Amino acid sequence: MMKLSRFLQQSRNSFGNHIDGRDASRLHTLTFQARISTSQDFTANERIYAPYSVFKGKAALSVQPVPPTFTKLTSGHVKVERRGIMMLTFMPAMGERKYDHEKRQHFALSATEVGSLISLGPKDSSEFFHDPSMLSSNAGQVRKSLSIKPQADGGGYFVSLSVVNNILRTNERFNVPLTAGEFAVLKTACSFALPHIMGWDRLTAKLPREKVGSPSKANRQEPNLEWAK
Amino acid sequence: MMKLSRFLQQSRNSFGNHIDGRDASRLHTLTFQARISTSQDFTANERIYAPYSVFKGKAALSVQPVPPTFTKLTSGHVKVERRGIMMLTFMPAMGERKYDHEKRQHFALSATEVGSLISLGPKDSSEFFHDPSMLSSNAGQVRKSLSIKPQADGGGYFVSLSVVNNILRTNERFNVPLTAGEFAVLKTACSFALPHIMGWDRLTAKLPREKVGSPSKANRQEPNLEWAK
Amino acid sequence: MMKLSRFLQQSRNSFGNHIDGRDASRLHTLTFQARISTSQDFTANERIYAPYSVFKGKAALSVQPVPPTFTKLTSGHVKVERRGIMMLTFMPAMGERKYDHEKRQHFALSATEVGSLISLGPKDSSEFFHDPSMLSSNAGQVRKSLSIKPQADGGGYFVSLSVVNNILRTNERFNVPLTAGEFAVLKTACSFALPHIMGWDRLTAKLPREKVGSPSKANRQEPNLEWAK
Amino acid sequence: MMKLSRFLQQSRNSFGNHIDGRDASRLHTLTFQARISTSQDFTANERIYAPYSVFKGKAALSVQPVPPTFTKLTSGHVKVERRGIMMLTFMPAMGERKYDHEKRQHFALSATEVGSLISLGPKDSSEFFHDPSMLSSNAGQVRKSLSIKPQADGGGYFVSLSVVNNILRTNERFNVPLTAGEFAVLKTACSFALPHIMGWDRLTAKLPREKVGSPSKANRQEPNLEWAK
Repeated sequence: MMKLSRFLQQSRNSFGNHIDGRDASRLHTLTFQARISTSQDFTANERIYAPYSVFKGKAALSVQPVPPTFTKLTSGHVKVERRGIMMLTFMPAMGERKYDHEKRQHFALSATEVGSLISLGPKDSSEFFHDPSMLSSNAGQVRKSLSIKPQADGGGYFVSLSVVNNILRTNERFNVPLTAGEFAVLKTACSFALPHIMGWDRLTAKLPREKVGSPSKANRQEPNLEWAK
Repeated sequence: MMKLSRFLQQSRNSFGNHIDGRDASRLHTLTFQARISTSQDFTANERIYAPYSVFKGKAALSVQPVPPTFTKLTSGHVKVERRGIMMLTFMPAMGERKYDHEKRQHFALSATEVGSLISLGPKDSSEFFHDPSMLSSNAGQVRKSLSIKPQADGGGYFVSLSVVNNILRTNERFNVPLTAGEFAVLKTACSFALPHIMGWDRLTAKLPREKVGSPSKANRQEPNLEWAK
Repeated sequence: MMKLSRFLQQSRNSFGNHIDGRDASRLHTLTFQARISTSQDFTANERIYAPYSVFKGKAALSVQPVPPTFTKLTSGHVKVERRGIMMLTFMPAMGERKYDHEKRQHFALSATEVGSLISLGPKDSSEFFHDPSMLSSNAGQVRKSLSIKPQADGGGYFVSLSVVNNILRTNERFNVPLTAGEFAVLKTACSFALPHIMGWDRLTAKLPREKVGSPSKANRQEPNLEWAK
Repeated sequence: MMKLSRFLQQSRNSFGNHIDGRDASRLHTLTFQARISTSQDFTANERIYAPYSVFKGKAALSVQPVPPTFTKLTSGHVKVERRGIMMLTFMPAMGERKYDHEKRQHFALSATEVGSLISLGPKDSSEFFHDPSMLSSNAGQVRKSLSIKPQADGGGYFVSLSVVNNILRTNERFNVPLTAGEFAVLKTACSFALPHIMGWDRLTAKLPREKVGSPSKANRQEPNLEWAK
C-alpha cells in the first residue's frame, strides 16, 4: 500500500503514468514521431530513427527523444497537446551481438525526470517509478522502476530497468553498464533535447516581415536605444 | 526610503520596472507572444502555450520565455524593439489539484536576472526586487520580490514571490518548493532560452546564395586558407 | 595479441573501426560533407570548410564535424544511414608556418568518444585506439592511438596522435599543445556538435499546419490544460 | 621590445591583428553583420542590432557576435572566408546615463579568446593583447589590452580596456564592473555564440529529399540497424 501510494505520488508529480501508458499502447517501435496534429486528427506522421544505442553483454539500451505535439486553438493560438518525452528502450541479449527486439521494454522520462538525470553529480543515484496502468482498474498491477547508479570506479554508471507485472506474473530486469563517455553523451544529448521536448525550440525570435512606412517613428525611437531596451 | 532607493537601483540595472509594467498591462494570459512588429504596428500575433509548470500543495509556478520584438529601421537594418524576458507566473492553490487563475501574479526576469538564476551554486540564494509602477506617480506603492533559496537537504530550492500592494492594501505570498530535477529543468531551459530572449538566435551564419563567377579569384584565396582565417 | 584484443574491444564499443575505415577511404580532404542520400545513391554532395584549426611548432590540428547521413525507408520513415563523427586531422610542420598536407593523418571520433572528450576533468587523461583495417585481412597492421593529457601547469592539454603502420613500416607521431582557451573551444564546439552528429538536431517540434475545424473539441481540452500535459 | 614580441606572439596564435584591423576600418557602428558574400562581392548586407549592453558609472560595455562570411569555391564547395568574432564595444560616460558614442573603442575576440573567456574559473583572470596595425608600418604604435579580473567579493568581474596610441599620443582606459549575473549572461551567450562564429551552425544534418526507389535495398539494410550505425 505504501509502495502504491509512492507510485501515485511519483506519477502525480511527473505525469509518469500518462507517459508510460503511451509506451505500451502507441510506441511499438523504436522511433520518435514528429507528429503534427490539429484538434481533429493527425495530418502528418513522419518517423525518424536516430537512437543513441549502447550494446552490452546482457542487454542493450536505446535512447531517443519524442517531441511534443501542438494543437491550434480556435483563438488561433497554439498550445502543447502532448508533452514530449525521452524514450528509453531496453532489449535483452539473446546471443553474441544479438538482442531480442520482441522482449523490449520502454521507459519514458518526463522533462522533470530528464532534469534529474542531467543534474546527477558523480556520486549521485536516482530512481524513477512508473505505473503504466495508474488511474485504471489495473492500477498497481505493473510496476516499472528505472535506477541510475554510479559505478564504484571509473566514472561510469549502471542503468537498470525492472518491470514487475502481477497480471502476467513476470519479473524482468535489464542491466546496462555505461562508460563515463557513454553517460556524458546521454547527459549532453538529454540537455540538448530537453528544451525540444518542452516545445521551447519554437521560441526563436522572428524578424519583422514588413517594410517601415514611417521613417519619423523609427527615428524617434533611436535616441532611446540604450535605455529602452 | 532606503528600500525604495534599492528598488530604483535594482530597476535601473535590470530594467525590471519596464518589464514589470508589461506584466500588469499586457500579459494577461499564460502565453508567450511571438510578436512581429514594424515601426507602425504589430502585423502578426502568434501565441504559443508551452509553459513549464510545477503544481505543488500551496501554489503552482509556470515559466515561459517571451521572445524580443524587432523593428526595421529606415536604413533597412533591424534592431531589438522590446527585449525578451522569462515570465514566471504564480497561482495559489484553491483545493486539491485546483489553482486560482484569477489570483495569479507575474514576475518577469530580464536577461541579467536569468543570468543570476542560472549561475546559482548549490548553496547560493538570490533575491530580485521589482516595482511595477516605477517612474509613475504610484512609484513605491507595489513591491514585488522573488526569492530563490536552496532547501536544507536534497538539492531542491524554494521559490517564493511576495507582492505587497499599498494601494489595494494586499499582501500576497506564493511558495513553491522545487525538487532538484525541477530546478535543473529550470536552469537548463533558461540557459537555452537566454540567447533567444536576447535575440542572438538571429545570428546564424548564412551561406553564399550566388554562384562563383571568377574561378581565378577563388583559387587565389586557397593558399591563404590556413593563415587568413 | 593482447593489444589486438584491446583494439577489438575498443572498436566493438565505439564502432571505431567502422569510422576509421572511413578516414582512409573516403575523407581525403579536410571537409565535412553534408551529404544527402537515398537508399539508392547520393543525390547531393555539398562540402563546407569550417574547421577549427590550431597551428603549433611541430604540427597543426584541425577539427571538423561530419554530420550523419539519413536514408528513407520504404515505409516512408527515415533512419540514420551512417553516423556522424568528429574528424581530427593532423599535419606535420615543414617549416615556419608551413604544414605538410600530404602527410596528414585523420582520427574520427565517434559520438561516445566525443562524450569522453567533453567530460574530461582538469586532471583527466584519455586515450583512444583505432584499427582502420579491423575485420579485414590487414587487421592489426595499422594502429592509431589518440592521447589527450593535461599539461603540468596552466590548464592546457597535449593532444597526440600516433600511427604505427606495420605494412609500410612507418611510425608517425604528432604533438599539438593546446592552450586552456583552445581546449575550451574544442569542448564547447564538440558539445554543440554532439547532438548534430547523432542526428538529434532533426528533433525540432513542428507546429500544426492546419486550422481548427471544430471549436468545441478545442474548447473541451482547455480545462485539462494544467493536468493533461 | 619584449612587449612587442609578446603582441606578435599573441596575435600569431589568436589572429588578433587581422580581427582588430577589422574593428578600426569596417565596424564603425554597434552592429553585427549577417553578410552574405561570393568571391566577387557582397550580395546582401543585413544588419541586426541585438547587443547585450551594461551601463555603469564610468563606462558602458556592449557585446555582440559577428558571424563569419562564407565564399563559394569553383568546385561548388563552400568555405569560411572571414572568421566570425565577438565584438566588445566600450563607451565612456559623459554624464548621468549618457555615454559618448564618438569615443567608443572596439575589441574583437577570436574564437580562441572566447574560449578563454568562457573557461574562466571563479578566481581566474585573463588578459588579451591586440595590435591593430600589426604587420603594417605602424606596427606597435597602437596597443590595446583587455583585462578580465574577478572582484574581491561577490562573484562579479572587472572588465577593462586600455588603448595606448603612440601616434595620437592618447591613452584611454575603460572600466566596467560586471555583476555575477551579468558575467553569467556573457558566458552563456558567448558559449551559445561560439559555434556560430566558427560557422559550425551550418552543420545541421539534412534529411533525404528523394523517395526510395528500391524497396529491397532498404530492407536489406534493416538487419544491420544495430551494428552498422
